[in-house]
Amino acid sequence: MGDDLSNAVRDDVGDDVLLARAYLNRVAEATCIPLWDFVRCEGPVAAAAAIRSSSEPQDLTAFVGARRHSADPHADLVAAERFGLRLVVPESAEWPHFALACLEQTGLARLAEYRAGKTVHDKNGERVPPLALWVRGPGKLRSLAVRSVAVVGARSSTPYGDQVAGELAYGLASKSFTVVSGGAYGIDGAAHRGALASGGETVLVSAAGLDRVYPVAHEPLYRRVAESGLLVSESPPGSAPHRQRFLTRNRLISAFGTGTVVVESARRSGARNTAIHGEKLGRPVMAVPGPVTSAMSVGNHALITEGTAQLVTSVADVVSVIGSIGEQATAEQAELPVDTRSARRHQLLDVLDSLDDTTRRVYEGLPARRPVSITDLVQTSGLPPSRVLGAVPVLLLHGLAEDTGEGVRRTRL
Amino acid sequence: MGDDLSNAVRDDVGDDVLLARAYLNRVAEATCIPLWDFVRCEGPVAAAAAIRSSSEPQDLTAFVGARRHSADPHADLVAAERFGLRLVVPESAEWPHFALACLEQTGLARLAEYRAGKTVHDKNGERVPPLALWVRGPGKLRSLAVRSVAVVGARSSTPYGDQVAGELAYGLASKSFTVVSGGAYGIDGAAHRGALASGGETVLVSAAGLDRVYPVAHEPLYRRVAESGLLVSESPPGSAPHRQRFLTRNRLISAFGTGTVVVESARRSGARNTAIHGEKLGRPVMAVPGPVTSAMSVGNHALITEGTAQLVTSVADVVSVIGSIGEQATAEQAELPVDTRSARRHQLLDVLDSLDDTTRRVYEGLPARRPVSITDLVQTSGLPPSRVLGAVPVLLLHGLAEDTGEGVRRTRL
Repeated sequence: MGDDLSNAVRDDVGDDVLLARAYLNRVAEATCIPLWDFVRCEGPVAAAAAIRSSSEPQDLTAFVGARRHSADPHADLVAAERFGLRLVVPESAEWPHFALACLEQTGLARLAEYRAGKTVHDKNGERVPPLALWVRGPGKLRSLAVRSVAVVGARSSTPYGDQVAGELAYGLASKSFTVVSGGAYGIDGAAHRGALASGGETVLVSAAGLDRVYPVAHEPLYRRVAESGLLVSESPPGSAPHRQRFLTRNRLISAFGTGTVVVESARRSGARNTAIHGEKLGRPVMAVPGPVTSAMSVGNHALITEGTAQLVTSVADVVSVIGSIGEQATAEQAELPVDTRSARRHQLLDVLDSLDDTTRRVYEGLPARRPVSITDLVQTSGLPPSRVLGAVPVLLLHGLAEDTGEGVRRTRL
Repeated sequence: MGDDLSNAVRDDVGDDVLLARAYLNRVAEATCIPLWDFVRCEGPVAAAAAIRSSSEPQDLTAFVGARRHSADPHADLVAAERFGLRLVVPESAEWPHFALACLEQTGLARLAEYRAGKTVHDKNGERVPPLALWVRGPGKLRSLAVRSVAVVGARSSTPYGDQVAGELAYGLASKSFTVVSGGAYGIDGAAHRGALASGGETVLVSAAGLDRVYPVAHEPLYRRVAESGLLVSESPPGSAPHRQRFLTRNRLISAFGTGTVVVESARRSGARNTAIHGEKLGRPVMAVPGPVTSAMSVGNHALITEGTAQLVTSVADVVSVIGSIGEQATAEQAELPVDTRSARRHQLLDVLDSLDDTTRRVYEGLPARRPVSITDLVQTSGLPPSRVLGAVPVLLLHGLAEDTGEGVRRTRL
């Protein structure tokens, strides 16, 4: 059945795994706790086979019963290829393990609650990792999500918000940060346009299947993003942009950004939802202030006042919040005349000296040889998961740690 | 010499004290640490006599030598009367002891440094109490400075800032808060106008002598303030508005407000100086955010980011910061049908229940009979001076404590 899958679609992963993940991605809506748990325990191929033969755990039946026979992963992969999409799965080299490590942690915490009988869903959506991601574009999610900032905000933005989003994204892209956002009108669009205008790569995370463009008028924007960066969706081709899909999509925007900046938001808004995901995932959340006379700044001021977000007014503020040492290290790298091992070593030692205590403790918890998972790292460092999750991207960013695909380890100095 | 001083000028204070204070107020510039200390120790009459006869402490000579013979308090009082001014001194019933208690505390701390040989002046100006205050208007400073908010900001404000300042001041005055500000163009003027428009009383603290209006175009504003509220200046008649006088004036604006709101400020500004005075005096400092594209909001965003000020967007936010229980208590008072002792007592008990821990500890440190000074209260409560200074106005505001003129004590319930 998998023998006619082209290389474009199947990446470096066996057809059985790819087809199983495509099936699992289709058979239930995203962020289904019992499905995620079942796949974790059994692996994708066995989990998919069990569901197909109606032998899944009892608590999963309600979620997969309706589509177990209609789900057709082969058809999805063929459709995907027609639209230029590929399916990225945890078994792929391209999978952004470290950007998604925060969702592994929150997912495990939620799973413990679920097993304890708490079945009520968080109205913001469950924070569990995706089972698979559909993507389109030349970018590799794994590297795009290392030095990255989510720039989000209101659809019905004001000219002020559009201007600020555009200038922030332009400035961040100029400093080699990937800009991550949704595909909506308003702040999302302004952020992508700003980053693209400075030649940057952006990640557009859609709530709908990537064969659809939503809103339709953003077709040129989607095309430009797909030419240099990456379109991403957790929803298989053909999926409509339902409300719940926006809420679960927002957790991915937060996870793919090293930090999240809300540019404008009304009191109740999707951007607020993204900000709360960011906070729960241990990511720094920032908000741009605006006129107190503007309804589109009310949500941002509330985020600042209640302590969810830090006030930022400029690219420099954002860079300072997500790691002030980043700037300097990058400047040093750019100025380095000869990239000898010795010069590189001295540079890394300088960066090491400038680390804050938390990041240093996480660094010291990293083994030099065998890579470790984030869960192991939480144990060895003795720090709360959210602190570890914040520190790992900083270490990766400065080359002090490397992601081997199986985990993270110290870079040899 | 004092026998021709009219009642209007001399209040309830003996002529000797009044003339001595007028002399001391003229003989050196405001916030002279050794002069303040000398008057504290010797009393105003003896201190003035010593300076006149050149027998003051040696460290004071540099400050008073130039004017000791030319200072003419009688002429100042006669001039003051011509301009409708009166001199309020610490010996007057009108003196705002509790608004100025914060300056007693910071003054004593500064004095200890001064005695230890630290003679370098704070560039923001010394935070010591005034020796006397010239005032004009029907308002009594002592009661105006109890339920009060300083609303300050840039001279070169934007239309946005003027609008926000006017609306905030209007709303605060509608809730019976005195608005305190300077007399400058921009935010100061907008704040007074807003408060006056809702029939409120305002306190305008000038850096110049009150026979002058600065800027001249604000003559109608000064007149309106003097009709219902109060013009206040530490500088004797004839004093020009020097830069240093603005800086020392700013500490009075902070002290007279239970809290300080900065509406707009550039990176370096007088409003920032007032905000820092407020912080050092233990008063809550608030800042209104604005567009990050406006130079007139840069200072405010910095105040918020660095933790000096809390972000506020509305009258409700301001009231919440300076004491959320204030609103409710006032509403209850207004609704009280019969002001019986029993109803009042229940109301005070309700307020008592709603106090935060710090305020409750200060309340519990208050004796029911003999009034105590703030210094004693700091000792009995075991709290830092700044916390005590923040709590006392809240207790006065709710009628849980009363200011007897010699100190503060519990209201009998």
